[in-house]
Amino acid sequence: MIDYKLLEACAEVIRHGSFEKAARALGLTQSAISQRVKLLEDRIGQPLIMRTKPIAPTQPGERLLQHYQRVRLLEQELRDDVPDLIEGAGFGHIALAVNADSLATWFTNVPKKLFDELGLLVDIKVEDEVLTHQSLQSGRVLGAVSTREIPVQGCKVRSLGAMRYIMVVAPEFAAKYFPGGVDADALRRCPAVNFSEHDELQNQFFHRFFGVNPGEFPAHTMPSSQGFVTMAEQGIAYAVVEEHQAAPGLAAGRLVQPCAHVIERALFWHHWNMESRLLSRVNDIVRDEARQFLPRVGKNAHNIGKHQ
Amino acid sequence: MIDYKLLEACAEVIRHGSFEKAARALGLTQSAISQRVKLLEDRIGQPLIMRTKPIAPTQPGERLLQHYQRVRLLEQELRDDVPDLIEGAGFGHIALAVNADSLATWFTNVPKKLFDELGLLVDIKVEDEVLTHQSLQSGRVLGAVSTREIPVQGCKVRSLGAMRYIMVVAPEFAAKYFPGGVDADALRRCPAVNFSEHDELQNQFFHRFFGVNPGEFPAHTMPSSQGFVTMAEQGIAYAVVEEHQAAPGLAAGRLVQPCAHVIERALFWHHWNMESRLLSRVNDIVRDEARQFLPRVGKNAHNIGKHQ
Repeated sequence: MIDYKLLEACAEVIRHGSFEKAARALGLTQSAISQRVKLLEDRIGQPLIMRTKPIAPTQPGERLLQHYQRVRLLEQELRDDVPDLIEGAGFGHIALAVNADSLATWFTNVPKKLFDELGLLVDIKVEDEVLTHQSLQSGRVLGAVSTREIPVQGCKVRSLGAMRYIMVVAPEFAAKYFPGGVDADALRRCPAVNFSEHDELQNQFFHRFFGVNPGEFPAHTMPSSQGFVTMAEQGIAYAVVEEHQAAPGLAAGRLVQPCAHVIERALFWHHWNMESRLLSRVNDIVRDEARQFLPRVGKNAHNIGKHQ
Repeated sequence: MIDYKLLEACAEVIRHGSFEKAARALGLTQSAISQRVKLLEDRIGQPLIMRTKPIAPTQPGERLLQHYQRVRLLEQELRDDVPDLIEGAGFGHIALAVNADSLATWFTNVPKKLFDELGLLVDIKVEDEVLTHQSLQSGRVLGAVSTREIPVQGCKVRSLGAMRYIMVVAPEFAAKYFPGGVDADALRRCPAVNFSEHDELQNQFFHRFFGVNPGEFPAHTMPSSQGFVTMAEQGIAYAVVEEHQAAPGLAAGRLVQPCAHVIERALFWHHWNMESRLLSRVNDIVRDEARQFLPRVGKNAHNIGKHQ
């Protein structure tokens, strides 16, 4: 059997990205951690961690991290049945990757439920799709919300519904820049606001409905979900915003919709494919929250998925 | 004189991180952009852009980008006086680096003022101190909000005041985990929430006031300023939060302060050292906003600055 004391040291170094932090987390000295990692590497006959800055796992290192996370998950499950069995009991730990728009909207109550119901500490990573898939594969996260439908090897994927994006502006901005409604010329004369993750979606929106190409409209850049909506509300930009994020501004009259177009983007829940009661509960919690907030995927969203 | 058509192509490739996006932004074909960059490199006799993924500037490339940004700033100034002089007039453009806590609080109105008063589109980068300094030096940003006091070469630095951080929890969390007040044992038994940027500050807070070392207390991780406060309000974590971000929750009774300790962190405004009316206005706007929101640096903050 694997020596889990050694594996734990190695996995915590990878997870925290440093020997020092792993030592703190495990309450050991840094040299004890180094020794354990070295010993495991000697036994396996392969390096597990590249001593770069920040440190990075080798491929076998990633595979071991994945295994370690799975074992921890199973232990967490065991804890409910045999509370005193596991040394240093307390809280379990679950790492999830989530896109920024989800985190700012329907995902908000997921950490609370994971903690209250399952006693799990959440470790949230805000990532784009490419990174998310790497993180799943490397075992850094156990589940991920993503706009990609294709499953990662060793994972399952389920539909979560769709996020709907609409165009919003402040009323005074609409009066100044869109007095005759929105058209290509008007879009080229006043600024949009881009959020790195939104770029493609926004570009698609203006290209599809108004024939305006990316780069043709001036734009601010604001890589914060909150700051992004604020700039529209302040009347210094037009923006394509997720419906729930636009709702308070629309209700209070700080925002109006200058056109009725909608783009839907389907969201998917990726999770490891393993038999685990705990993971099933995590899956249920995520999907229940999504179901409450997100409409079901319309025809529209399917089209977008295919054409992108 | 430098051929600015070539320089513009090169600078936009660096700024956008891709030939394709630069082509879009300038309304040229990708091969036209490539030719211009190649021509400039041939003239200078040095590579300006490394064709990696994503592309990266060489050192002379960075120096040229810096020069280009300065020229653009001066042009923007000229525009106010001689509006028709500059081809393709419209909006100017200013790139700034800001730490996440500032962006979520006192910085909120800065983009609005820069746009309304100076006609500038803002390009905000959320960065930690190390990156911020690299970005200033490479000319990627023209100004930066940072907790570092040491100026970057070619830049000036001014004090902005201090952010004050306090410990907050939901009332029910306090009742459950801190019935006898906050002490080291209590902190080890219930979860905190870490925001990557907050880590050091939070660690310092608990070490300094309660003698608890990092890694000794369990913690969620939530890399979103909004999500961070939400988790405290939901009663699933204790948190050290910037005062303005805690204010709505404290006022509404969703949060309480389980202890009276405060940590101050001084903030500084770094900007290029160049004679420019426009840059002076940008400096004034940033400093005026800071002055309205941030208290002046107390003795406390100085100590922290020195001891860290």
